[in-house]
Amino acid sequence: MHVAIPLYPRFTALDVVGPYTVLAFAPGWTVTLVAAQAGPVTDDQGSLTLTATASYADVGRPDLIVVPGGPGTLEAMSDEALLAWIRQTHEHTRWTTSVCSGSLLLGAAGLLEGLEATSHWAVLDMLRQAGAEPVSERVVTQGKIVTAAGVSAGIDMALTLLGQATDVATAQAVQLAIEYDPQPPFHAGSPKSAPEGTSERALKLIV
Amino acid sequence: MHVAIPLYPRFTALDVVGPYTVLAFAPGWTVTLVAAQAGPVTDDQGSLTLTATASYADVGRPDLIVVPGGPGTLEAMSDEALLAWIRQTHEHTRWTTSVCSGSLLLGAAGLLEGLEATSHWAVLDMLRQAGAEPVSERVVTQGKIVTAAGVSAGIDMALTLLGQATDVATAQAVQLAIEYDPQPPFHAGSPKSAPEGTSERALKLIV
Repeated sequence: MHVAIPLYPRFTALDVVGPYTVLAFAPGWTVTLVAAQAGPVTDDQGSLTLTATASYADVGRPDLIVVPGGPGTLEAMSDEALLAWIRQTHEHTRWTTSVCSGSLLLGAAGLLEGLEATSHWAVLDMLRQAGAEPVSERVVTQGKIVTAAGVSAGIDMALTLLGQATDVATAQAVQLAIEYDPQPPFHAGSPKSAPEGTSERALKLIV
Repeated sequence: MHVAIPLYPRFTALDVVGPYTVLAFAPGWTVTLVAAQAGPVTDDQGSLTLTATASYADVGRPDLIVVPGGPGTLEAMSDEALLAWIRQTHEHTRWTTSVCSGSLLLGAAGLLEGLEATSHWAVLDMLRQAGAEPVSERVVTQGKIVTAAGVSAGIDMALTLLGQATDVATAQAVQLAIEYDPQPPFHAGSPKSAPEGTSERALKLIV
């Protein structure tokens, strides 16, 4: 399986590297970080730079794409080169997926019309602008379009897809290889569980 | 707070980017990726390159260091420049921490003698060579030395430290910002919970 993850300015690093690590550990899978041009792309904090090793023109026909989110998503929604790549690649993918606000890019590419989808809780309602029905779930599957909730949800989505593409034993082996036995020290990971006032604080942190 | 994360060849990407994302989201915190020389460093899969923006000589005195792991750890255990930087930086840190096999580097730097520590389950017993007492826990705190289990455990460690360095409300806001409400699709994240035979499969995936 060939996976491609597009980078654009001000992406959120964990949106990319969560699914990357899960899928790149899978035996025989390759993951390519891709952008308009090959080269460095810097994240939302301005302090982490990943290298795209292929341009959209050179990446071929990936089987699976994972579109990350981040504060840069809003600007990327008018990046016609990115949207055209998503649209064209989607024609041949087994899965077209997103993490966090990356689903707004699937929407801007015209892929979510009439479908249920999820996103980061802070922008979930914006999915309606693309004709999608926002759903507050960790991972939402609609045929070959799969959307995940905010940032860390990409890890859960990637393990789910890996189990479907290979077999449960392989996905479990990857889960054990990355020792994904989460033990968050607080119960604050979703707007439903977080203490009152946490959402307001969190919104201020989202650059 | 100034956080520094050293990169070395064949690090595991999520070991770096889990704690990075948590700590870089914290208001007023900065995270620097550092290496022997500033420039690109490539991960264990050969398909993800991060840019170190400072050399060991130029990074100053960080308050917190997070030493990642990966298949490259074994070679890095004889990287005297890295070990000397860990040792010198440790004299002034508030916390000196590791993720995954990164604890073997704290050990090689001579910091774990007589302490309890954890690591990736596959190399946990190697901690004895550094005079440490291996403990199979997600996060192990011994004064200002904090070690985390494999790969994804760095997220839990970073949230724990953030809560101690700031306050619980700030750490919860970061947890909500990254929507860290984990829902792994399988129960296979630790050798204790994984089905029989999973460890053998997982070991084959660890390059």
